[in-house]
Amino acid sequence: MTGLGELEPHMTIKYVYSFAEGDGKNKQLLGGKGANLCDMTQFGLNVPPGFVITTEACLAYLESKTVPAGLMDEVRAHIQKVEGQTGKRFGGSDNPLLVSVRSGSALSMPGMMDTILNLGLNQNTLRGLIRQSGNERFGYDAYRRFIQLFGKVALGVPDRHFDDEFEEVKRRAGVKADIGLDAAHLKGISERFLSIVRHHTGKPFPEDVFEQLEIAVQAVFNSWMGKRAVDYRREFNITPDQANGTAVSIVTMVFGNLSEDSATGVGFTRNPGTGENEMFGEYLVNAQGEDVVAGIRTPKPVQEMKREMPALYDQLLDLRGKLEARYREVQDFEYTIERGTLYCLQTRNGKLNAQAFVRTSVEMFQEGLIDRRRALLRINPAQLEQLLHPQLNPQGRQRPLAQGLPASPGAASGRCVFDADRAELLGKAGEKIILVREETKPEDIHGFFAARGILTSRGGRTSHAAVVARGMGKACVAGAEGIRVDVSSRQAFIGDLALREGDLITIDGSTGNVYLGEIPTLPPKFSEELKTLLSWADEAARLKVMANVDTVEAARLAVEYGAMGIGLCRTERMFNAGDRLPVVIEMILAGDANARRAALSKLLPMQRSDLKQLFEILSPRPVVVRLLDPPMHEFLPSEEQLTSEIEALVQYRSVVKGRYTAVSTLGIASSVNDLSEDSVNAVIAKKQQMLRKVRELYEVNPMLGHRGVRLGISYPEIYEMQVSAILEAAAECRQAGVQAMPEIMVPQVITAQELRRVKASVDNIQAQIESRHGCKLSFKFGSMVETVRACTRAASVAEVAEFFSFGTNDLTQATFSFSREDAENKFLPLYTESGILLNNPFEVLDVEGVGVLMKMAVEYGRTVRPDLEVGICGEHGGHPASIRFCHQIGLDYVSCSAPRIPIARLAAAHARLLEDEGAAA
Amino acid sequence: MTGLGELEPHMTIKYVYSFAEGDGKNKQLLGGKGANLCDMTQFGLNVPPGFVITTEACLAYLESKTVPAGLMDEVRAHIQKVEGQTGKRFGGSDNPLLVSVRSGSALSMPGMMDTILNLGLNQNTLRGLIRQSGNERFGYDAYRRFIQLFGKVALGVPDRHFDDEFEEVKRRAGVKADIGLDAAHLKGISERFLSIVRHHTGKPFPEDVFEQLEIAVQAVFNSWMGKRAVDYRREFNITPDQANGTAVSIVTMVFGNLSEDSATGVGFTRNPGTGENEMFGEYLVNAQGEDVVAGIRTPKPVQEMKREMPALYDQLLDLRGKLEARYREVQDFEYTIERGTLYCLQTRNGKLNAQAFVRTSVEMFQEGLIDRRRALLRINPAQLEQLLHPQLNPQGRQRPLAQGLPASPGAASGRCVFDADRAELLGKAGEKIILVREETKPEDIHGFFAARGILTSRGGRTSHAAVVARGMGKACVAGAEGIRVDVSSRQAFIGDLALREGDLITIDGSTGNVYLGEIPTLPPKFSEELKTLLSWADEAARLKVMANVDTVEAARLAVEYGAMGIGLCRTERMFNAGDRLPVVIEMILAGDANARRAALSKLLPMQRSDLKQLFEILSPRPVVVRLLDPPMHEFLPSEEQLTSEIEALVQYRSVVKGRYTAVSTLGIASSVNDLSEDSVNAVIAKKQQMLRKVRELYEVNPMLGHRGVRLGISYPEIYEMQVSAILEAAAECRQAGVQAMPEIMVPQVITAQELRRVKASVDNIQAQIESRHGCKLSFKFGSMVETVRACTRAASVAEVAEFFSFGTNDLTQATFSFSREDAENKFLPLYTESGILLNNPFEVLDVEGVGVLMKMAVEYGRTVRPDLEVGICGEHGGHPASIRFCHQIGLDYVSCSAPRIPIARLAAAHARLLEDEGAAA
Repeated sequence: MTGLGELEPHMTIKYVYSFAEGDGKNKQLLGGKGANLCDMTQFGLNVPPGFVITTEACLAYLESKTVPAGLMDEVRAHIQKVEGQTGKRFGGSDNPLLVSVRSGSALSMPGMMDTILNLGLNQNTLRGLIRQSGNERFGYDAYRRFIQLFGKVALGVPDRHFDDEFEEVKRRAGVKADIGLDAAHLKGISERFLSIVRHHTGKPFPEDVFEQLEIAVQAVFNSWMGKRAVDYRREFNITPDQANGTAVSIVTMVFGNLSEDSATGVGFTRNPGTGENEMFGEYLVNAQGEDVVAGIRTPKPVQEMKREMPALYDQLLDLRGKLEARYREVQDFEYTIERGTLYCLQTRNGKLNAQAFVRTSVEMFQEGLIDRRRALLRINPAQLEQLLHPQLNPQGRQRPLAQGLPASPGAASGRCVFDADRAELLGKAGEKIILVREETKPEDIHGFFAARGILTSRGGRTSHAAVVARGMGKACVAGAEGIRVDVSSRQAFIGDLALREGDLITIDGSTGNVYLGEIPTLPPKFSEELKTLLSWADEAARLKVMANVDTVEAARLAVEYGAMGIGLCRTERMFNAGDRLPVVIEMILAGDANARRAALSKLLPMQRSDLKQLFEILSPRPVVVRLLDPPMHEFLPSEEQLTSEIEALVQYRSVVKGRYTAVSTLGIASSVNDLSEDSVNAVIAKKQQMLRKVRELYEVNPMLGHRGVRLGISYPEIYEMQVSAILEAAAECRQAGVQAMPEIMVPQVITAQELRRVKASVDNIQAQIESRHGCKLSFKFGSMVETVRACTRAASVAEVAEFFSFGTNDLTQATFSFSREDAENKFLPLYTESGILLNNPFEVLDVEGVGVLMKMAVEYGRTVRPDLEVGICGEHGGHPASIRFCHQIGLDYVSCSAPRIPIARLAAAHARLLEDEGAAA
Repeated sequence: MTGLGELEPHMTIKYVYSFAEGDGKNKQLLGGKGANLCDMTQFGLNVPPGFVITTEACLAYLESKTVPAGLMDEVRAHIQKVEGQTGKRFGGSDNPLLVSVRSGSALSMPGMMDTILNLGLNQNTLRGLIRQSGNERFGYDAYRRFIQLFGKVALGVPDRHFDDEFEEVKRRAGVKADIGLDAAHLKGISERFLSIVRHHTGKPFPEDVFEQLEIAVQAVFNSWMGKRAVDYRREFNITPDQANGTAVSIVTMVFGNLSEDSATGVGFTRNPGTGENEMFGEYLVNAQGEDVVAGIRTPKPVQEMKREMPALYDQLLDLRGKLEARYREVQDFEYTIERGTLYCLQTRNGKLNAQAFVRTSVEMFQEGLIDRRRALLRINPAQLEQLLHPQLNPQGRQRPLAQGLPASPGAASGRCVFDADRAELLGKAGEKIILVREETKPEDIHGFFAARGILTSRGGRTSHAAVVARGMGKACVAGAEGIRVDVSSRQAFIGDLALREGDLITIDGSTGNVYLGEIPTLPPKFSEELKTLLSWADEAARLKVMANVDTVEAARLAVEYGAMGIGLCRTERMFNAGDRLPVVIEMILAGDANARRAALSKLLPMQRSDLKQLFEILSPRPVVVRLLDPPMHEFLPSEEQLTSEIEALVQYRSVVKGRYTAVSTLGIASSVNDLSEDSVNAVIAKKQQMLRKVRELYEVNPMLGHRGVRLGISYPEIYEMQVSAILEAAAECRQAGVQAMPEIMVPQVITAQELRRVKASVDNIQAQIESRHGCKLSFKFGSMVETVRACTRAASVAEVAEFFSFGTNDLTQATFSFSREDAENKFLPLYTESGILLNNPFEVLDVEGVGVLMKMAVEYGRTVRPDLEVGICGEHGGHPASIRFCHQIGLDYVSCSAPRIPIARLAAAHARLLEDEGAAA
């Protein structure tokens, strides 16, 4: 009963760390930027003095909606320290200390948070700054920037009021660039800005510098819960254990716009678009940092600095070397040169496109900078998709409509949309969109998500549009200055040409060209670096990567992409070809098994020859052939279509022959002269037969109906034909000296009894073919595991099946009791947006539901058959997180569409390399 | 390496046991009849000497298709023993030994196997028999019976050839009953029968008695795999561990047709139709046993024997007492009196109808013959369904068309069908069938399965038709002699009246009356015995039994049947009432949440008042109310209907007013005079609005669509209204002093997040209602578990849900990936008939698939919430085997439709009483 108070002392949490004391590894506490500033300071780079307010302070603020007790006292103490280091004074009129206030969370979210520069300016310190710099124009320029940023970010004044005012002054002064404005102009602008703030907030602009600082810190905190930040976290599934709250970095301002030997720039230690090992970046002389990032002025490539400021360029090269040696990763850094002194303001891992990631991985390994593990792990497998994007077909290329900077490689076609809200709207409606803007800002982020490509008329390769598009792997052409965008009329003008919303254009982010219309594309080619990297991945991985392939073309592509076999060949897709479909329909319409067999005997040689080609292309790799799965009515026209066709034909028959047009639209005969009444009657009879069959086959829930092995058991002759085709093709291959490795797979299995039925027939056919061809056939017989019951009965299923292949599309549907098409059209968007589900389970494997069943099936199956081969052939087989789960539960392979094979190969390596980290997916 | 031969000695299996040595408990080896004969012999009843060939011999025979080595040697040795006991000789000409050859497997399958009598007769022994009995007529009668039975059963000669010949002789002799034929007639018949056999088999009738015996034994063996036996085993799911192979009993013939002090009869120790404690049965003087069973002659009630043969009647009473004391079960026994000596030929547990089972259970307990456990366990719960069959409404009763014996109680209406194959066909097509036959034979069994009732024109209350119908609990009227059946023309004649196939009739198995047309029925009443028995069941059971109820009427019935609450009240069924549906449609058509709320506010008072009534009726028992489940389009007419309605209306509008008929069929207005053009336009507009909505709501797989809690989340105002109705009704009950125990249940849950959403709204509404009514409400909030994901996520679902209720219909669908309606119309019959599935999983809970998920859900759920209440409310909740499984996995209650509650109560007791036996379902 005594001393309880002593057991719970009043803990004072430390909310602020100077750059010299913060732990450079603790991004969760200090944010990425803050930790980085600490790290850079501590390993000896020239960083302007400053300090970091922790994410804990942010969370405490957001919870209580008040600035945590003691925080501002700590801030004051650290300001004092900085005053000591710089000899400046915060709020002082002689040598005033100005600071920047930046946000930064554990994960880099480019542009998500707003930054305030030049904080500490007021009427008093402004005079000091002018006096000290001897540059009135510089002073008012800094002041008007501060008022606008603070007004917008901290006080919520709409940006356009400032912009309009600024443009108006420029217009009146008759100047094009900011640089053309003189001190008087800028002074006038500052005064107008102050009155804009007063007008909008109802209060004068705060003069007290600590009040400014406190308001700014709160604004940064609040931005964590802003719509853009929340959107971004949702889009990328960022959970609190990855990033929770934002830190605030407060850094002494240094000025790139103090003089002509001042400059500001951003750079990458290697080219983020190609991976080339050369410094990459842009700078502006006599300018402040925001001018570069916002793309307001078009900067110069860093290579020009070599000529213009050779000594500083050498310092930059030195900085680049230090950064890569320290971080073993391509760095994206910001710097300012104030009167000849280089300050490093920030560095972070560079967002590279896939090509650059691949090249730098291979080269940094060769340079000894990183090991193979890191070379593989530093690339997000999903990003490889960029490399598999189609490129413009040179033959289809027209004269470009306009040209800009090649800001993010890849080609994209889509309909022009001129603002992010419309882009989001139309994108969700399924349109292919190109977002066309004068320039983009962070508030456009939802438009990026919706668009296939971004085109801007202003800004360089490090402008917001370029950086964000590269991060997302979307094509971007930036700074296409020939284009004038008029958002209000939803048009853009290129010379005399008006582009309206909805017009089709194509952009090529690799060349910067913009074309009218949709240009045909070519499939992408593998680079040598990618081949090298993926061969390392294959060595590292345990999972094999197979392909879902139904055609000869796709099979060739799959082999080129490194497929280790075909994991899913859907035989029914072969049925849909023009010469097969009529025979398939004949089979479906057959009145009895004999008539069905007659039709099937025509399909057999076609299916056999298709399969033989696949076996040849894949030889000696395995080819898993799935027997017929979809319900038979899928091969027939719809009831509506048949009804209206019959109606039209009957009508035709009853009218004069002159009315040709009514019939020609039906595509029954190329020339209506062919149509005798008898032939029309015959067509009507055929259609009526089809209609009766369609009605007979009608199902209330076709996904839950007569399909898969249920068909195979109802009409054994269908599977007999397919098995014959598979085994005969294998026998023919063998006779031709080609090693064929077929695996026969049965869909929709719910019990081992079904498999036993089919197996008996397979054994029978095998014996016949072996005796006919005089050879022994080697193949496997296995089961799709795509019903829940196949999972719970996996032990007995494995008594018959030599392999399992998870059909996670159907399994997901069964687990959730909703079908993909019905869910995605109705309630699923609401479910994922409101967080009821984290992901669309048809895209990201649902580990907690479907995964539980998969794990059960693997365990039960291997109890009975320890060497049971298990794979996955649903769409999830190409999704990295799903692949990781498949690795964890001991699958042997994943199978996915050919273009996703490189992704899957890298993801398989990741899964193995990260397995020690034991993180559950 | 030595002595291996000694380790595997040639085992000689003992295939034959005399009645004195066989183990009376080993039915699996000796068959029910065989074991019974051994048991009766060993406890001192007068059984004719004989022996049993084991089921192992049968299985060995069926496997090798030859009589097992050594079997016939053993048989010869046992025949010698019997010869010693009886002083007769097999094949002897002086005092020939004749035997009967009967089948009998571990489970009683009445009439499934054929019996051969009088085996051992040939030209030689026939002369001896005649000499010895001094009765030529008797000798030839025995001979012709033997030839016919042997010819039919062992040699496969169609029965009708013998019957036709026999009828022809009777016709020519001008006699009606067999008894009218004299020795010469019978001799002639024997000779014709021999030549029929010769003609059909191409060989003379076997004269060697051991050859006869060997052929007969093989015929019995073969009958195990005969269609009828296989059908029966499939219908009743008899597995090899229950009965595998048939034994053969070979018994010395005793003759009830030797003299006028000879007789034969069958009896029950108690009345199998009412349970009354009185001897029940029939006998025929001077007749052989088959005459009684086959119903060929109409026998006398056993009570007449008291007068006719009082000494023998006393012997019979003595036998009855011994049998019940020994078996503690109602016995169905056969006996023969040969020249004044009573022989007991067979006894087995009697097949009683449900009423008799219930009454005898209660009375035998009261008599101290059995304990409560046995009183409960001896009744198959499913049989209670008989007691819940409707009875004819006395007010609707007409003059009967015909009258027969009340052979199996209950009333049934249906369409006449005159042979079993047609009955099966039409029954499967969904018709209600009454099978009408002159008499039935075992080969009609498939017709019984298909029929709702059986009507015969010949035979008594122990005829085949009566016995089988009672076993199945189907209504049966037997021996309605006024009916003449003509199978070939598919008609029956009653006097002048012709009944054609398809005509509706009603039979009352409790009175023996037959009526034309469909007579209205009354719900059955509970007997006092049933109430007693079920109260014992409730004491024995752990599972509670609740009702699936949506109406006030059903709720009252459920309470009467002993429901311990409502386990499922489907609120949407309340929506379908005439005054609600238009408001529901208004709600569905609403353009926004406000318009929806307006419509819902009209539904609220209706739903509240419905629920209040239910709470009152059930008070103080719990009432589980499920929130809206079906997709909204289910409340709208179909697209086709709307389209054609609109078309017709448009057409109407465009024609003259005279054409009233076109419109009046649409039911738009009672008088077409009401229809102004404006009102037609208004109706068209409304229908078009509905049509648009129907199209908007269209789903490819409605079972997998926008329903259940997904609707509740998309349109929160719907669930808000329903929750308000529930809680307001509860508050009103409380104010009226009625204890209401509502439980709110959310359907189609896949994640706890959904429940949290709904729960938040419930909490909110609860607070409002509690403050408005000034009281605290007590209720539970829980989840349907009917998706697979709810099972795998049961732990997190249980964090929010206070109870689970398994919806095993949906869960079965999800587990099998086929929907009930599509499967049952397409492939499911093939699956169950061919043994791919043992049962229709929508009828019998699939323990190996669905059961695995249920078990998982219970375990996971109780990990988080140890007192989690778990029930089942799918149709399986009323199925005994499923109830047993529910007990085994620890459920708290089952909920089923009101008429199944008594069955469920008894099944729940069985589950508990049998749990020590540990047999997995």
